[in-house]
Amino acid sequence: MMDGVPPVLDREALSRAPPHAVREAIRERRWTGNTKRLALGFHQANVTIVPERHAFDFMRFCQRNPRSLPLLDVTDPGDPSPPIAAPGADLRTDIPAFCIYRNGVLAERVTDLSAVWRSDHVAFLTGCNLSMDQVLIEAGIAFPHLVREDAFPAQYRSSLAARAAGVFQGPVVLSYRPVPEAQLLRVIELTSRFPLCHGGPVHIGDPSRVGITDLAAIDWGRRPDPAPGTVPCFWACGITAQAAAEASGIPEMITHAPGHMFVTDLPVSDRSFG
Amino acid sequence: MMDGVPPVLDREALSRAPPHAVREAIRERRWTGNTKRLALGFHQANVTIVPERHAFDFMRFCQRNPRSLPLLDVTDPGDPSPPIAAPGADLRTDIPAFCIYRNGVLAERVTDLSAVWRSDHVAFLTGCNLSMDQVLIEAGIAFPHLVREDAFPAQYRSSLAARAAGVFQGPVVLSYRPVPEAQLLRVIELTSRFPLCHGGPVHIGDPSRVGITDLAAIDWGRRPDPAPGTVPCFWACGITAQAAAEASGIPEMITHAPGHMFVTDLPVSDRSFG
Repeated sequence: MMDGVPPVLDREALSRAPPHAVREAIRERRWTGNTKRLALGFHQANVTIVPERHAFDFMRFCQRNPRSLPLLDVTDPGDPSPPIAAPGADLRTDIPAFCIYRNGVLAERVTDLSAVWRSDHVAFLTGCNLSMDQVLIEAGIAFPHLVREDAFPAQYRSSLAARAAGVFQGPVVLSYRPVPEAQLLRVIELTSRFPLCHGGPVHIGDPSRVGITDLAAIDWGRRPDPAPGTVPCFWACGITAQAAAEASGIPEMITHAPGHMFVTDLPVSDRSFG
Repeated sequence: MMDGVPPVLDREALSRAPPHAVREAIRERRWTGNTKRLALGFHQANVTIVPERHAFDFMRFCQRNPRSLPLLDVTDPGDPSPPIAAPGADLRTDIPAFCIYRNGVLAERVTDLSAVWRSDHVAFLTGCNLSMDQVLIEAGIAFPHLVREDAFPAQYRSSLAARAAGVFQGPVVLSYRPVPEAQLLRVIELTSRFPLCHGGPVHIGDPSRVGITDLAAIDWGRRPDPAPGTVPCFWACGITAQAAAEASGIPEMITHAPGHMFVTDLPVSDRSFG
């Protein structure tokens, strides 16, 4: 390696790195991509930032919709460091990319929040299905998004309504994975054990039963290409927060960019963090 | 039974009653005592009511201290009905007794909140060790508080500090149960499975290690009378909220009276309520 030139990182190396090393690589822009499979075994988190005046409403929204938004940590107003999930980390710089919603519309995508962060900002960290990766890999479950670099689950606004709280309401967003029939019960069992990673599926089978009439008409993620012999499975998804920003039209909500999560110090194997 | 005279209720009958019937008996003052063993199999909840301006601080305090204050439900400001735990119930009347803390001091004990409730009041329901009763009874664990009508666990301010959030800080309050040596591992295993009922013990053995130098000097509950051959076991306790009211000196906090809990519709056997 040449002086002053940071080493090129690959996903495989970062998958075995500890969480703080992944965050450092992101902070120093040595890693700018999505975070799938990084720091395997540790919770990756959806991040949702709202002004303090909406924070209690949003926290109740998470509490009432724990399948979509299982709470891992909440910051104090103005403090960009999550006290439980990664003390000392900085949410403004330790995430590869952010989406800024204004009045319910995706207005901007940025890679650093330092210039945007205010003393009334509160950040919520909620569990993510990507955190299940290690468990699924070890169980021999080969979801396309785990084995193909360019693959990513598709996500859809469903016909299920999230439980409202204050200004927040909207549809439950579901992520879709086609599961081989022979692995279906095993996948339901494994994912059900991890409520902080959205738990088990909320629907299997006919997508139209949850309001999804065309799997090709994705709302987020990548257009799926389901193999024959697979069963459509749908999990509650953290993008339910972005859908609430859109449906509620609140003046400001900042989130991680889809797939570009905050990597926490919380082990997936530990089910509670008291 | 004579016309117009409500039937006398005994604890044994109410232990098998559904939660709504227990709440109705409390609302109609046909039951005014503590709630131990009532509606076995359903979560009983600690109730903490604060003005909306302290609600986001208190919700973070719960989130950061999930062993003491495992969140079951949070009401909308001014709404006395818990939307997840018991839709349609009324927290102002469906609890046998309340404590009102003003400026950090227990100022008043009342049996009805109807005259006190305001449009800015927010109620938090958190899990309670009494909810474990059915599991322990079925496993043949004979805690004194389960088998003797006059017995109740002792509770102490410990030397462990709760994680602070906004105005809330203070000691972790621990509840004490002497466990027969032969049952110790079984009790740890069983209680560990129920994080919404405080989970497993946070300390076993020498009480002075958690700052309790004299078991006779109780802070809440009943003075214990440990049998020979038992091991001191300490669990995190919901009274941590009252201790925070005292330590923080906030102008107003209303709680259930110790042992006089809110009986919810949430089955203890269901670990999540998404």
